[in-house]
Amino acid sequence: MAVLICITGRDNSKLEQKLRASLPGVEISQWPNCSNLAAVEFVIAWNAPDELWSQLPNLKVVQSFGAGVDGIALKQLPEHVAVTRIVDTGLADDMAEYILTHVLAHKLRLREYTRKQNQQQWKPRRVKAHNHVGILGLGELGLAAASSLRNNNFIVSGWSRTHKEVDGINCYYGQNALHQFLENLDYLVCLLPLTTHTSGILNRVVFEQLPNDSVLINVARGQHLVDDDLLWALDNHQLAGATLDVFNAEPLEPEHPFWQHPLITMTPHCAAITDLATVCEQIVFNINAHFSKQSLKNQIDKAVGY
Amino acid sequence: MAVLICITGRDNSKLEQKLRASLPGVEISQWPNCSNLAAVEFVIAWNAPDELWSQLPNLKVVQSFGAGVDGIALKQLPEHVAVTRIVDTGLADDMAEYILTHVLAHKLRLREYTRKQNQQQWKPRRVKAHNHVGILGLGELGLAAASSLRNNNFIVSGWSRTHKEVDGINCYYGQNALHQFLENLDYLVCLLPLTTHTSGILNRVVFEQLPNDSVLINVARGQHLVDDDLLWALDNHQLAGATLDVFNAEPLEPEHPFWQHPLITMTPHCAAITDLATVCEQIVFNINAHFSKQSLKNQIDKAVGY
Repeated sequence: MAVLICITGRDNSKLEQKLRASLPGVEISQWPNCSNLAAVEFVIAWNAPDELWSQLPNLKVVQSFGAGVDGIALKQLPEHVAVTRIVDTGLADDMAEYILTHVLAHKLRLREYTRKQNQQQWKPRRVKAHNHVGILGLGELGLAAASSLRNNNFIVSGWSRTHKEVDGINCYYGQNALHQFLENLDYLVCLLPLTTHTSGILNRVVFEQLPNDSVLINVARGQHLVDDDLLWALDNHQLAGATLDVFNAEPLEPEHPFWQHPLITMTPHCAAITDLATVCEQIVFNINAHFSKQSLKNQIDKAVGY
Repeated sequence: MAVLICITGRDNSKLEQKLRASLPGVEISQWPNCSNLAAVEFVIAWNAPDELWSQLPNLKVVQSFGAGVDGIALKQLPEHVAVTRIVDTGLADDMAEYILTHVLAHKLRLREYTRKQNQQQWKPRRVKAHNHVGILGLGELGLAAASSLRNNNFIVSGWSRTHKEVDGINCYYGQNALHQFLENLDYLVCLLPLTTHTSGILNRVVFEQLPNDSVLINVARGQHLVDDDLLWALDNHQLAGATLDVFNAEPLEPEHPFWQHPLITMTPHCAAITDLATVCEQIVFNINAHFSKQSLKNQIDKAVGY
């Protein structure tokens, strides 16, 4: 009954403390301070070092510490190892609120008015007649965002890898339908999982298919975006603006051109901040489920990567 | 059958043109180019000069060019003169969207993140746990805003001069209930009509009753606000911020301290811009109604001023 926490780049003391309090009979350690790796069956992981996996002969479950599993080296895991992820419904609400807020901020020209205020310019303009939002990815986050946008009178289209039908959303799927999905959007929101198929999906080819007064909102992963293609699109009037919450490297390096770009609104990966209590509850559930041979919650399909 | 347009500080040529097209049998002129003031029965007015009214012996109807009638010198009108105003339901939708957007912008710290972006600071913070909006004024604009905020999971309280009950809103009324209404708000939104009772209502006494991390949003009239009291409240941490769409003098004079205040978000009276087609339709209706002795639409009670 041994559990290992291997989440790099983060202070995990509160997490360890909470897990110990909820799981009195379970041996819990933190990488690299684990004296008996052979006993470990359950790992809670994010950006674990590559050399870890080969040292765990009895590994049965990898619990991602995030909503995605892109922090887990799926290809290095033996086939029988199950991978689970966190599903925090609060995250979906926060994400939907972030997207609604930033869509409205573009529609009502908030940045434009801030600039005018700084320059003491009194120049009223009507709000943009921009009401069509396209969402890449119709998982729980995409559906929550779609529902909130529709409740606020936006027209919503959605694109997913496989066929989906959702009431009130114009659904498109597969590579062939991407062009049709993109061509009339006012806002493109990326909420895709990060996989080999979706990495770099926000690129020049996509930006060229969007109307050139449209706006990109990326709240998925920095690796979905080709940074130079966004800069090209903004500087060549192919896009009217972008709101970015995620970046190829986080924190974004100081010399990166995104910081000072007049058409880019940046936030520091704060669109949806995981609630530790919710996370612990799900991890504890899965640890108990594993050791009592019950079904795990929120297990992913390793073949598709989400 | 003579109509006079007297709307100062605005180019009224499109309005005149549209009215002429819809009212072929009616004589329409614009102040001061009117050769026969004695024939005028119907005036479309906003900020008309005081000397106008005594020159109109046959005046029967004053149609305000706005949703309010504070641009009409009510006290100078003979008792038998009816006063009507514009009711543009699109205005209520636009106003509700503006209020929702600016409430969300404060909740999600948009200004704070813009500042951090400019300073290349990566400092994620949770959204504010601020969900309680208080609306001063429960007319059609106040009710539309309340409904939109409730649909987006905000708790809404409302205050009105006279007793009102609205489903899902904590309703308060009268001067005595103002303190109770204010004491737990995160956002105070002013949507009151401007009358002798409400002029200067947004003052130091009110700000002192609000929690000191709350935010003021004034979208009614600049005269509701005592400018110096707002500056005092912001500079003494009595309020956390303000969003202002209306000002005592518009455009706001260049030397006014609001322009450069770090806690004030300004927009140039653009929260709800009247749609000329809607306005003309209502004016034409009332002109026809008057000359055919039918009931006028949207007539106000001159005693209460709205």
